[in-house]
Amino acid sequence: MAGRESFLRLSLRPGTHSGAWRRALHGCVVAGLVTVTGIAGIGPVLAGDPAAGKAKSRPCITCHGKDGIGTSPIFPNLAGQKSMYLMQQLRAFRDGRRPSEVMGVIVRTLSDKDIEDLAAYYESLDPAGARPE
Amino acid sequence: MAGRESFLRLSLRPGTHSGAWRRALHGCVVAGLVTVTGIAGIGPVLAGDPAAGKAKSRPCITCHGKDGIGTSPIFPNLAGQKSMYLMQQLRAFRDGRRPSEVMGVIVRTLSDKDIEDLAAYYESLDPAGARPE
Repeated sequence: MAGRESFLRLSLRPGTHSGAWRRALHGCVVAGLVTVTGIAGIGPVLAGDPAAGKAKSRPCITCHGKDGIGTSPIFPNLAGQKSMYLMQQLRAFRDGRRPSEVMGVIVRTLSDKDIEDLAAYYESLDPAGARPE
Repeated sequence: MAGRESFLRLSLRPGTHSGAWRRALHGCVVAGLVTVTGIAGIGPVLAGDPAAGKAKSRPCITCHGKDGIGTSPIFPNLAGQKSMYLMQQLRAFRDGRRPSEVMGVIVRTLSDKDIEDLAAYYESLDPAGARPE
């Protein structure tokens, strides 16, 4: 944790970094604050329902597996992945900020609630790939 | 496998889908072919060296953990992730195809060999997060 704290302190000192590094460090500061507020219980409440997510995950199975393990070397494993990261990425695919012809089409009709449920479901799966019942 | 085969057959029938869906299905067909050629041993040889990747992973630890488990809710776990997916994403960050202020800066100086080594290292880690020695 000492490393992270000094990293955050470093990033808050203005004028010591190039623009690109400053932007990168700013991203890390935002991430750190998200973590801190999340731990303190004042962050956004994650309302995802794993059971609802499971029901909504049928279109994902072809590529990401029934157990959340990718069915090809280029399809990522999702089992046990952090739900907040998954939500962030699903929204980015949907909104075009993470360009992907495949994912962009598949997620374009998802609501925020669908995304929360799917993220909660995949986070709940065994990262080693034990098959859910 | 039957599902995947019918999915591929479906995608090869021309004129039955909208442009967006056709592009998405085309992506899946390409992915399927990568899988098939990989299984048949005629795909690209993965030359990544996990030991070299471990040595190169120091800048990744702050966010992705010593054990490949993200240190914040928005930093993804990398432990046990498929190396081909990791290589693809690292190249996409480096080349700007996956826009990210944080990752774009961090990976911009990586060579293809660095990316192969890092991907092999993270794939070799326990997805449940057992700490490497």
